[in-house]
Formats: sequence, C-alpha cells, structure tokens
Amino acid sequence: MVYTQKMLRDDALKGKTIVVTGGGSGLGKAMSKYFLELGAHVAITSRNLEKLKTTAEELEKETNGTCLPLQCDVRNYDEVETMLKAAVDKFGSVDVLLNNAAGNFISPTERLSANAFDTIIDIVLKGTKNCTLAFGKHWIDTKQTNTSVLNIVTTYAWTGSAYVVPSATAKAGVLAMTRSLAVEWAKYGMRFNAIAPGPFPTKGAWDRLLPGDLEDKFDMAKKVPLNRVGEHQELANLAAYLVSDFSAYINGEVITIDGGEWLKGAGQFNLLEAIPEEMWDQLEAMIRAKKDKK
Amino acid sequence: MVYTQKMLRDDALKGKTIVVTGGGSGLGKAMSKYFLELGAHVAITSRNLEKLKTTAEELEKETNGTCLPLQCDVRNYDEVETMLKAAVDKFGSVDVLLNNAAGNFISPTERLSANAFDTIIDIVLKGTKNCTLAFGKHWIDTKQTNTSVLNIVTTYAWTGSAYVVPSATAKAGVLAMTRSLAVEWAKYGMRFNAIAPGPFPTKGAWDRLLPGDLEDKFDMAKKVPLNRVGEHQELANLAAYLVSDFSAYINGEVITIDGGEWLKGAGQFNLLEAIPEEMWDQLEAMIRAKKDKK
Amino acid sequence: MVYTQKMLRDDALKGKTIVVTGGGSGLGKAMSKYFLELGAHVAITSRNLEKLKTTAEELEKETNGTCLPLQCDVRNYDEVETMLKAAVDKFGSVDVLLNNAAGNFISPTERLSANAFDTIIDIVLKGTKNCTLAFGKHWIDTKQTNTSVLNIVTTYAWTGSAYVVPSATAKAGVLAMTRSLAVEWAKYGMRFNAIAPGPFPTKGAWDRLLPGDLEDKFDMAKKVPLNRVGEHQELANLAAYLVSDFSAYINGEVITIDGGEWLKGAGQFNLLEAIPEEMWDQLEAMIRAKKDKK
Amino acid sequence: MVYTQKMLRDDALKGKTIVVTGGGSGLGKAMSKYFLELGAHVAITSRNLEKLKTTAEELEKETNGTCLPLQCDVRNYDEVETMLKAAVDKFGSVDVLLNNAAGNFISPTERLSANAFDTIIDIVLKGTKNCTLAFGKHWIDTKQTNTSVLNIVTTYAWTGSAYVVPSATAKAGVLAMTRSLAVEWAKYGMRFNAIAPGPFPTKGAWDRLLPGDLEDKFDMAKKVPLNRVGEHQELANLAAYLVSDFSAYINGEVITIDGGEWLKGAGQFNLLEAIPEEMWDQLEAMIRAKKDKK
Repeated sequence: MVYTQKMLRDDALKGKTIVVTGGGSGLGKAMSKYFLELGAHVAITSRNLEKLKTTAEELEKETNGTCLPLQCDVRNYDEVETMLKAAVDKFGSVDVLLNNAAGNFISPTERLSANAFDTIIDIVLKGTKNCTLAFGKHWIDTKQTNTSVLNIVTTYAWTGSAYVVPSATAKAGVLAMTRSLAVEWAKYGMRFNAIAPGPFPTKGAWDRLLPGDLEDKFDMAKKVPLNRVGEHQELANLAAYLVSDFSAYINGEVITIDGGEWLKGAGQFNLLEAIPEEMWDQLEAMIRAKKDKK
Repeated sequence: MVYTQKMLRDDALKGKTIVVTGGGSGLGKAMSKYFLELGAHVAITSRNLEKLKTTAEELEKETNGTCLPLQCDVRNYDEVETMLKAAVDKFGSVDVLLNNAAGNFISPTERLSANAFDTIIDIVLKGTKNCTLAFGKHWIDTKQTNTSVLNIVTTYAWTGSAYVVPSATAKAGVLAMTRSLAVEWAKYGMRFNAIAPGPFPTKGAWDRLLPGDLEDKFDMAKKVPLNRVGEHQELANLAAYLVSDFSAYINGEVITIDGGEWLKGAGQFNLLEAIPEEMWDQLEAMIRAKKDKK
Repeated sequence: MVYTQKMLRDDALKGKTIVVTGGGSGLGKAMSKYFLELGAHVAITSRNLEKLKTTAEELEKETNGTCLPLQCDVRNYDEVETMLKAAVDKFGSVDVLLNNAAGNFISPTERLSANAFDTIIDIVLKGTKNCTLAFGKHWIDTKQTNTSVLNIVTTYAWTGSAYVVPSATAKAGVLAMTRSLAVEWAKYGMRFNAIAPGPFPTKGAWDRLLPGDLEDKFDMAKKVPLNRVGEHQELANLAAYLVSDFSAYINGEVITIDGGEWLKGAGQFNLLEAIPEEMWDQLEAMIRAKKDKK
Repeated sequence: MVYTQKMLRDDALKGKTIVVTGGGSGLGKAMSKYFLELGAHVAITSRNLEKLKTTAEELEKETNGTCLPLQCDVRNYDEVETMLKAAVDKFGSVDVLLNNAAGNFISPTERLSANAFDTIIDIVLKGTKNCTLAFGKHWIDTKQTNTSVLNIVTTYAWTGSAYVVPSATAKAGVLAMTRSLAVEWAKYGMRFNAIAPGPFPTKGAWDRLLPGDLEDKFDMAKKVPLNRVGEHQELANLAAYLVSDFSAYINGEVITIDGGEWLKGAGQFNLLEAIPEEMWDQLEAMIRAKKDKK
C-alpha cells in the first residue's frame, strides 16, 4: 500500500486561513504543506525566523499557495497577540489555530531540575494556552464563527509515560483544555479537537529526542501492531479532516493515530504473541486430552 | 454551513468491497450510499430481505453502483458464514466489514426480563462477534490482507447509561473486542476501529426508541454544545475515512462524533452555562471589591 | 513489608450478608474469608456443590463465621433466583452481591469456535447480568436499601487484550453495566462498583490459564512496576472496603489494583528503563557538549 | 447511615510521617486529622503560617498527635526544599507526600487574563511538581523506600470542564504526572496514586468558588445519583487507605469518589430519570399494543 496518497477533495480547505505553531519543520511543516495543497492560506510560526522563511518559500514553491512566516515565542502572550494581528492583517481573518509547537526531552525525572521541567510546561502547556486564549478572545470579540482549534498531544497524555514526564504532564493539560473549551466555547462557534500521534519520526526531533544509538536500540516500529511507523501524509490527512468542515460534528475529541501502539503495550496478555504456532498446537492438544479424560 | 457536503475524492473506495450489516435503513443505509458513491461494492444485510431489496435498488439507482442485498440474522453463525460466502461469490472478495446491525430499547432496567436483556446482547455483541469471527477466519485462511473491520458503538459504551443498559453492556463488549483484535490480528493485515456516534436521528429507530411525545420532551440537540444533532453525511464522511486506506495508521481507535454531547454532561461545572452575562459581571465586581478591601 | 496484614476494624462488616459467586476457590474464597473475619455472613456459590461444601467448612472453622454453600450455574436465571431465595431464607436478607464467577481461556482468537466464544460471554456477562437483575429486582420489590454490587473485572476491560478476547469482551460489558446501574438504581439505595485486578495468581486458575511452562516463560511480575504479583489479602482489603459502608460515596467506580502493570505497558517511553545509568550519564554529557558549542 | 464513621484500625498509620500541602483548612485539614488519629505524624503546609498554627494546635488537642505547621509557597522550589528539610529535621524522615494545595476560580474563560490562568497552573501543577520532585529526589538520595505520593485531582481532570478551565488543565497535568512516576519511580520504592473527589463542600473554598446565591442555584447534590454531597470523613477514609500499606498494590491509580456524579452527567440517556413511573407504564402498553397488532 502507498501511505503517501492524499485524501481530501482538492478544494477542501479553500477559503480557510490556518495558523500552525511550530510550523517550520517536522510534522508541523508536513501538515502545513497539505493544508496549502488543499487551498488554505497558512501562517507558520516559531522562534527561528530564518528557518521559517526558508520553509515558507519552499512550501510556496511546491504548492503554489501562500505561506506566511511569523516569528513568535508562544511562551510570551504579547508575542502571540502580535503574531495573531500579523496573520489577520495579511489574510483578513484567521479560521483555524493548530497548536503544534512543543518541546520534549528524554531523561530520568530525578535528573531534571525544577527549571528544566518548567521549560516544557511553559512551551507546551502555557504556549498552547496563550495561543488559544488570544485567538479565542479575538474570535469572540469579532463575532467570527465556524472557527476551530486543533491541538497536537500524545498517546501518553492519558496513560502518562516515564522518561518524558514534563511532556506527559503538559500534554495532558492541553488535552483537558481541549475538552473543556469544546464545551464552553461551542456557543461562540468554535470547535476544539486533538490528535494523539504515535511514532511519526522526523529528522530533527527524533535525533534530538533519541540521541546516539538510542534510536536503533529502541525500534519504535516493533511496538506497533502494524509493525511500521507512520507516514507524515497519514497525519496530515487526519489533521486536514479535523480542520475542515467535513468534521463539523466532531468536537472535544482526541483521535489517536499510532497503529495501535499504546494498546499493544497496555493489554495484559498481548505479550503472548511471542508464542509460536507450534506451541499453540501443543497447548490445544493438552487441553483436549484433559477434556477427553473427564 | 452545509453539513451535507461530501469529503473524499470521488474514487476513494474504488476496488473495495464492503459488507454493511443492518444496511437496509437508517445510518447503515446512509453509510452504504456514500461508500457506493465513492466507488465501493457494497453488500447490505438484515433479517428483512424485502426491505433490503428495496433499499439496494434505490441505492443502485441513485449511485450507479452495485449493491447486493443479503438476508442474514447475525445471531446465527451459520447464516453469517452463508452471507459471507454469497458476498465473496458475487464480488470475488470482501475487504471491509462494517458491524452496524443493532437493537436497543429504552426502559427502566427493573422492567426488563432476563430474556429481553439477552436479546440485545445476542444481536449487538454476539452478532458482531459472529461476523467478526467469520470474516477474520476467512481473511486468515485466504491470506487476504489490507482488510478492516469498523464497529458502530455508542458514546455510552465507556460511561454506561441508565435506561439503555443492555445496549450499553453489549456495545462496551464490542469496543473491547475492537481494541483486542486491533492488536492480535494486525499481523494478518487487518485493522479494527470503531465510531461512537452521538445523536443522529433516524426516522424509524428514534421513533421506536423515544415513542409518543418523549422525543419532544427530551430534545437531544439541547445536550450538544454545538446545539444541533448530526447529519447522516457527517457520520458517512467519518466512516468512509476509516474504511479507506487514508486512515491506514489508525488502528484500535474509537472516534466519538457527537458534537461534544457526552463531555457537556460529564464536566462538573458545565451546567454554569445557565448563568447570564450580567451575573458574571456582578460576580466579577464582587470579587474585585473583596480584593480592594484587603 | 508484610502484605498479608488486615486493614479494617474487626467489626467492619458485622450485620452484612454477602453473596460471592465463584466463591469456592481462588480469589473468591480469599475475599469470602476476609468478609467472614470482619463479621459478615457469607454465601458462596458455584456449580460444584462438593467443592463449595468443603470450602464453606474450612472457612467456618478458620473464622468462626457462617458460610453457606449454594449450588448455582449463573448462566441460568432460574437457578440464580433459587440461589437468592436460599440465601434470604437462611440469613433474613442479603446486602451485597459480589459477581466474581468467571471463565477464561488463553487462545489465538482464530482458533476459537463461535460457541467457545459464547461460553465465556454467557458465564461472565450473562451470568453477572442474571445475578444483578435478580438481586436488583428483589431489593426494589422489598424496598431494601443500603445494598451494593461489586463486580470483578480486569485491567483489559478498557484496553482490550489479545489472546483473551472473549474475556475482554465480556468483562467490558460488565464494566458498562456497573456504571449504568450506578446511576440508574442509585435511587433505590444501591451502589455499584468494580475492581480490576492485575496479576493475583491462584493455584487452579493460573495453571489452567497458562498451562505447561507458559507460566515460567511469561513471568507476570516483570511487567509490574512494583516487580511483584499481588497478595490475595491485598485484593481482599480493597473488596472489603468497597462492600463496607466506609466507601459509601464511591459509586460507579472501577478501581485498578495491579501495581501499575497496565500503565507500564501503555506509556510510550516506559521501555527506556532498560537504559543503564552510565548511558544516561553519557547522554547528558553529549547534550551538555552540544549546548556549550552554541 | 452515618457517614462519619472511621474505617481503619487505630494504629493503621503508626510510624508514618505525612506532609499535607494545603493542610491548614478544608479537606486537607480533614485528612490530616484522620491521619493523626491513626497514629501518623503530620506536617501541614500553606502560605499562611498563622492559620496553620491555629489548625495544628486544634488538631493536636483533638487527636493527641503531633502536627507540625510549615509555611511554604509551593510555587517556589527553594521554599519546598526548606519545608522538606524542616519536616525531616523534626520527624527524622518523611514517608508520604499528599499534594492537596490548590487554587481555583469559576469564570468564563474569555474573562481570564493570560496571567490569571498562569496563576492556577503555577499553584496546582508547578506546585505539585515542585513538591514531587523535591521529595522524590530526597527519597532517591537517601535510599528511603516504602514511600508514596497521593495527589488530589478532580473528576474533570479527564473530561475537562467549562468555567474552571485553568484548574481542569492543571489537574490533568497532575494526573499524568501521577501515572508517569508510578511507573518510573517504582524501582525506588515509591508509589503514586490520586483521588478525584466530587462535591465535598468546605466552608471557605465553596463560598469563594460559588459566591452570592450561586451555591443555592446550583445544588451539587442534585447532580449526584446518591442525591447527597460527600462527608469529609469519607474522603479521609479513602486517603488513609491509599497512604497506608494496606493499599500497597495500588499504584498509578486515580480513584473517583463522587457518588457517581460525573457518570450521571455523562451517560446519554441518564436524563430520562425525569420520566415518571406512570409514563413508563403507558410506554410499555403502547409497545405491547404494537407487537400484538403484528
């Protein structure tokens, strides 16, 4: 199967303006590209303007769309407001906020300082909160409806995970924010949803996250029932669906796209897949023999 | 907004054969129609062959597709095997099973006999199990891969619900089956997912479920943050996505499409939406006054 | 630490009559024993009257309590009603139903017949339903309040699990029933809760479940963060708390007691515990070196 | 029933030292009192030393136990370390950390400034993180085992809730932290659990949370299947169980104690409890009449 095919009708996002935080690289860039292909205007943000500009040019060339690079540290509420204003100035209005900017590092928790832990909370949780609050207030003030927020969380937002505890903590907060505002701000015409991606390796991020030969030692594909990691286009398909009007009745939902990875770990007897067929044959024979005796 | 628009590329399901149990009416019919429009072959099943035939003719006329009506009581494993064989005979193979056949009735649980309760378990849970087991074994025997099962559950499969306890019980079982086999049978190239629809009224089913003036008294739309019930096409969009290859990395997932209904009920302070703006003004003034005193 | 200590005050269950299905052996027996020690009257049921009688005698001797053995196949509603009547005749009334009777077998799902799958649904799900319905109707008819039902489910009732799919399916149904009736029947003075035990090995059951040398190969303790399996008294402590009036405000809840087993499997990066301390040291040094360069 | 009875054996917490943040009033005070009655040493912390001293004296008088008041703003990591040191200096060691300190206010989210939102995240999430990190590092450094952390979250940590979004966000973070460290730090002999309390009114907190006549208008008891709010002793029973060794195999778990409140809101058809008995009679008659016609 070819997992890189595109799903939606060509004009599915025509007329929509989408702001993608952390849109300069990795999954944010992949989603931005597909949004542009589907006819959306896209603004991408991050702290690194040079990188953003390069990405924006590249995406515009590939898609013939309009991609606006906007420098913004989401931890700073004033910068977020400035970024929003710039996007509105450029495109007239903004319809969708995709909170994708994040930070993470893998470490035993006892090796983290209180400050290091705070940094992740500030980027992931407060950053998402800053953008959501600024955009939401703007939409309420301008009485703009049919808007939506899409948050990128993780499969361990609900189960937690060792060795990435600041990220688990912050992403869980984002998930609760998603669900809370899906109810509270629905009356203003906003929808809120989230995606929990499993392993979608990206050059930069995974190298940083699993440095050295860690990435080889811990082959994420093996943990996935489908026995492979995800393609960026697969995540982009889901994101495009959720920011489009085709998903207009999905609200407050977090959709996991991980090939079944977390479930494989979670189910108590899933490890029995290690048993070979012949052994199941023997076991069956044993059980039948016992029954026949009775 | 027009919620009846169609999402996927026109050929998104071309080459796929899909069996929809309970496909003769209601949501099953709506999903079948969209699958046909997207190029799939569809077999619809139920106990009532006459109704199925009428529906199949109607759908073929509307979509120019091929729709095969197959009589089958899913409670009976032999009938399920016969139905599967008939679908394979007609179309060469079957790629997707959509377990949509269900039964439900609203009643205080103490008014139910043990037998009445069993009837729902038999249709919903054992019926889904029978179809899943027959199709799964067939796919394993024939080494057919890239197949999938989509189960229709409910938002109360997880939270439970009063007055529909047999249905809650049975649908929860279906959900666990979905997640279990998503892990176990992934190695055979099968995916398993589920949809939990909120209020999508259908003429027949809701009249039976909420007879008399119950339907007026308990206006489901009011419980939904988006303040409306769902359109059938919205459910069909999601179902088409999940049975298509575009969702190939979603496995073991249940997607809720209810406009946020269950969350609105669940969150502890959501009922405060009844507070008018003026009262929030007063409250704010009160709190500020207190602070100033200090 | 000694995990076999007893928690509650000596008279914590005095005056209560508790029916424990599947009470003749294993965990059912362990819970029954502790209930007797805390002053409760206990009736134990199963299909095997001889075994029940032996257990009842043994428990009476050890605890100086009153333990009534009652033959009952929970799949048969008439037998359940007869069993209930016998318990009421003996003790005057019954206050608590503990649905502990269960069946399970480990097998690849494609090796199961439809009938074999049904057997587990019938014992676990319909059995629990039969007892719950009979006891509930009785309590409503006799206007008895301050009653409660405690259901034993599993950690995979929510996540599902391969190789025990009928059990996962049936236990999930029991969980939804628990939550549904916790709401619906609260007005009649009943509470409903559940326990999801992790690995609590019992001689008979685990031998049957993991025959041959499977038990050695798949050491359940290794999957548990606490690195040990559970002691029966630990489960009995929790069960006693939940059937006692001390937990009167806990309703509709399922409490997991598994040492963290399911979470350890579920969290995406939990497998990194395999990394030795020295490697973390190296990783830290690498990261610091990179920072210093900037 | 008398919900104020005490559950555990008199010496259940003898030899344990417990630090309760936010222990000066409300639920923190109630839990501290019961811990003292069960033989524990208790340190209570908050920003207000005067109030703490009064509470400590009162509790010591009532229980004959030892209660140490310690001023500490949990938002400040240095103050947390100082507080920990003071507790260890006084009692020799500390065995349990109960993260109970919290902040909350009810408000439409669009009326909140970014700073106001941050305040709640800082107190609830960063505060809990600061205490957990300081105590955890201390226990690892001193190789002390058989320790545990108990976090107080809310029922809306998972579902989210409108009008208390900062609290929902922060508490969800705490929940993920609980589950993450339950796995990661188990090897150091620590357990992590959480309690999600429903409506347990406390004089000060609820007056502030629901000022004016809001409290009358939104009678929390009506949302609870059990039709009452919780007694402080009921929460104290559960907390004592979870910090005691009797719950040694419960790890990574969050236990909801809310009388079924969140489930009642969540289940789709739970609102049908408004239907009177006579109407169910009529509905049954209608359905029977239809069947007879066929």
